[in-house]
Amino acid sequence: MQKGLVKVWESKQLPSDWFKRQQVDQKATADLEANVKTILNQVKTEGDKALIEFAQKFDKAQLTAATLKASPEEIKDAYTQVTKEQVAAIEFMKQRVSVFQKQLLANTEVKAFNEGIMVQTVLRPIESVGCYVPGGQAAYPSTVVMTALVAKIAGVPRIVVCSPSDAAGKVNPLVLVASDICGVDEVYKVGGAQAIAALAYGTETIAPVRKIVGPGSKYVTMAKVLVSQDVAIDMPAGPSEVLILADQYADARLIAADMISQAEHGTDSVAALITPSAKLAQEVQDNLFKMAASAPRAEKVVDSLSKYGFIIVCTDIDEAVKLTNQFAAEHLEVMANDAQKLSEKLVAGLILIGPNSPVALSDYASGTNHVLPTGGFAQAFSGLSAIDFMRRVSIVECSREALEKVKAQIKVLTDTENLPNHYRAIEARFQK
Amino acid sequence: MQKGLVKVWESKQLPSDWFKRQQVDQKATADLEANVKTILNQVKTEGDKALIEFAQKFDKAQLTAATLKASPEEIKDAYTQVTKEQVAAIEFMKQRVSVFQKQLLANTEVKAFNEGIMVQTVLRPIESVGCYVPGGQAAYPSTVVMTALVAKIAGVPRIVVCSPSDAAGKVNPLVLVASDICGVDEVYKVGGAQAIAALAYGTETIAPVRKIVGPGSKYVTMAKVLVSQDVAIDMPAGPSEVLILADQYADARLIAADMISQAEHGTDSVAALITPSAKLAQEVQDNLFKMAASAPRAEKVVDSLSKYGFIIVCTDIDEAVKLTNQFAAEHLEVMANDAQKLSEKLVAGLILIGPNSPVALSDYASGTNHVLPTGGFAQAFSGLSAIDFMRRVSIVECSREALEKVKAQIKVLTDTENLPNHYRAIEARFQK
Repeated sequence: MQKGLVKVWESKQLPSDWFKRQQVDQKATADLEANVKTILNQVKTEGDKALIEFAQKFDKAQLTAATLKASPEEIKDAYTQVTKEQVAAIEFMKQRVSVFQKQLLANTEVKAFNEGIMVQTVLRPIESVGCYVPGGQAAYPSTVVMTALVAKIAGVPRIVVCSPSDAAGKVNPLVLVASDICGVDEVYKVGGAQAIAALAYGTETIAPVRKIVGPGSKYVTMAKVLVSQDVAIDMPAGPSEVLILADQYADARLIAADMISQAEHGTDSVAALITPSAKLAQEVQDNLFKMAASAPRAEKVVDSLSKYGFIIVCTDIDEAVKLTNQFAAEHLEVMANDAQKLSEKLVAGLILIGPNSPVALSDYASGTNHVLPTGGFAQAFSGLSAIDFMRRVSIVECSREALEKVKAQIKVLTDTENLPNHYRAIEARFQK
Repeated sequence: MQKGLVKVWESKQLPSDWFKRQQVDQKATADLEANVKTILNQVKTEGDKALIEFAQKFDKAQLTAATLKASPEEIKDAYTQVTKEQVAAIEFMKQRVSVFQKQLLANTEVKAFNEGIMVQTVLRPIESVGCYVPGGQAAYPSTVVMTALVAKIAGVPRIVVCSPSDAAGKVNPLVLVASDICGVDEVYKVGGAQAIAALAYGTETIAPVRKIVGPGSKYVTMAKVLVSQDVAIDMPAGPSEVLILADQYADARLIAADMISQAEHGTDSVAALITPSAKLAQEVQDNLFKMAASAPRAEKVVDSLSKYGFIIVCTDIDEAVKLTNQFAAEHLEVMANDAQKLSEKLVAGLILIGPNSPVALSDYASGTNHVLPTGGFAQAFSGLSAIDFMRRVSIVECSREALEKVKAQIKVLTDTENLPNHYRAIEARFQK
């Protein structure tokens, strides 16, 4: 096979630990943990003062306790810095996400009588939620839509956004506009691990929240893991990934285009193809080689593809499915014969079917969430949804008659578990 | 007010940090974390050898790699050590839980066309799950039902139970019988933090799992938090709690019985009453004083009540609701006028309505789960359910026509977020 941009493996040559993406550098992790702990502790003990100090250090911004929060004037002003088309596009995304999330919430409540005992399950919104919106290289209004709007649809009464400020002490206007459109209650100019600390433990200016969601750097992710002893988080998050499962009928040009689009996210972003067709693998390599060179941001794309991109050529489609599921990608595109049926067996955060469903569609226009489990976590985690901003509460009401019917069984079980006073509490209902 | 067993507060005297249960002893937590990390690392590096060593050290059991797993003979033998009534009671509990969980899973899948884009959400079982079942003071077959059975109903293909062995190298027969009845695939004689390490990272004998659930000691809980960087867990868990919200019409004798039943769980178990009625508060104190002395396990009950029990007398029912929600108890019993309506405003892991719905009912016979969020986590977490053993996956399929319709909006959004190759991937669908 001709040498190309990405590494090509035949499935039988794959190292046995190929899919262990969590090959953690223990030393680096310990250092990161220690650094983040220092930041968390400083925010815990010094509050706003620490946030102001970190904003100066990391964002080169001069803030005060009074300017940590984006003011109504700043939000109004943000609208003057964005185009009408951008506002309309954010509104479009809002509408798409709303339709899908509302469908997801329909029929989620259950009320039933099980042998005389009324058991009801209701979903209730979490009281307050914090959404982390990364800053830095670009503006991510879509992250606001995918986190804060979804919390709004769930009925969360208090929604907070934290996003790093620029050197002028401002949050990106697109983030402010998206926050306004999505009904965010408070926007703070705080980034990194210090934002997670403020959301978890509160400061003089920022009241703590019950759950923290949203993507971020490795500092943000480590901070989320560390505060998860005290406050709920969505999921551990790592670099974005697309895996494409394709057979000989797929279009190599489209596969290459989707891999390139993934690669522009950052140098550690994974773009990969698993296929039983050696011919397709070669065609994708050829297309990558040709297309990446002329792509916008070519240097970044080429660097990312050559470091993290890969193609695996399998002996047949069954083996391709097996390896796809071992990888458990964040995004999985299926471009193969009978893709819908194949998808029933596949493991991924989000599954995109057919030639006209690229990741760029699901990132912006399908209404599904783009906050998804990465790094193999799709094996056990789900993409963010309105349900993640709610608590599932069971409500039980039993009649005296129904309680009498189950009394004898409860006696056996409480005796078994050495909890005699549990049975006495039942008995008390039948004594005077 | 006459002095009684538990501390009584008038609401206006409550210290402002009364509800901050996470008043963590930083030094003790750091020590615990360091100890647990040592155990996790030893299991990671030494595998079975470490498990055998810890079983000897903590459980006084002589095990080998060959006897770490409960054998089919041991499971068969376990049935000879339990009564017919116990087996029937476990079967009863299995039936109750099954009915409720199956109702919960009905209607959870969504398939819809949103402006030509097919979006489907399906629930799929996690591939493998580990259930921790505590040992020690008593046997907890109900924990097997509440974790492993629920995983089974979700369709999890591989279900593992870890529970500490006794000094004879055996897992409690009731735990083995319950595991057999609930369809558990593997039972290992491993307890404590080392069990969590084995489930998370695997050893020669124990293959790792994708999610770890179940209650445990502070070592188990710390281990779960630490491994949550690498594997999914259910929730942080602390001492069990019951809070009773009652008005002047409630029966003080039943309230006292329920508080005593809670107190027998352990010395750090919280049993509490919040009420607007000073008269009821006094009656409950009187009943506690009288009933606790003659209760089975009286010493433990009295110790627990006097250390962790409390009563708060509020000015009115609205304040009682407010304080109840600040506490966000694991179990909340509502014995008040119009309890059903009141429950709509209440925050708790599980809500029990009326005089005939004590915690002992929900622990064993209502079919609801007794693995519930404690320590105020009910603000953001839900009780364990079949849904927690599943991944929510979205599947998207777009037609060329539908993609063409959303193209322009995607262009604005990808330009906004500086991801030009994302738009190029869309455009590629319309070029040859």
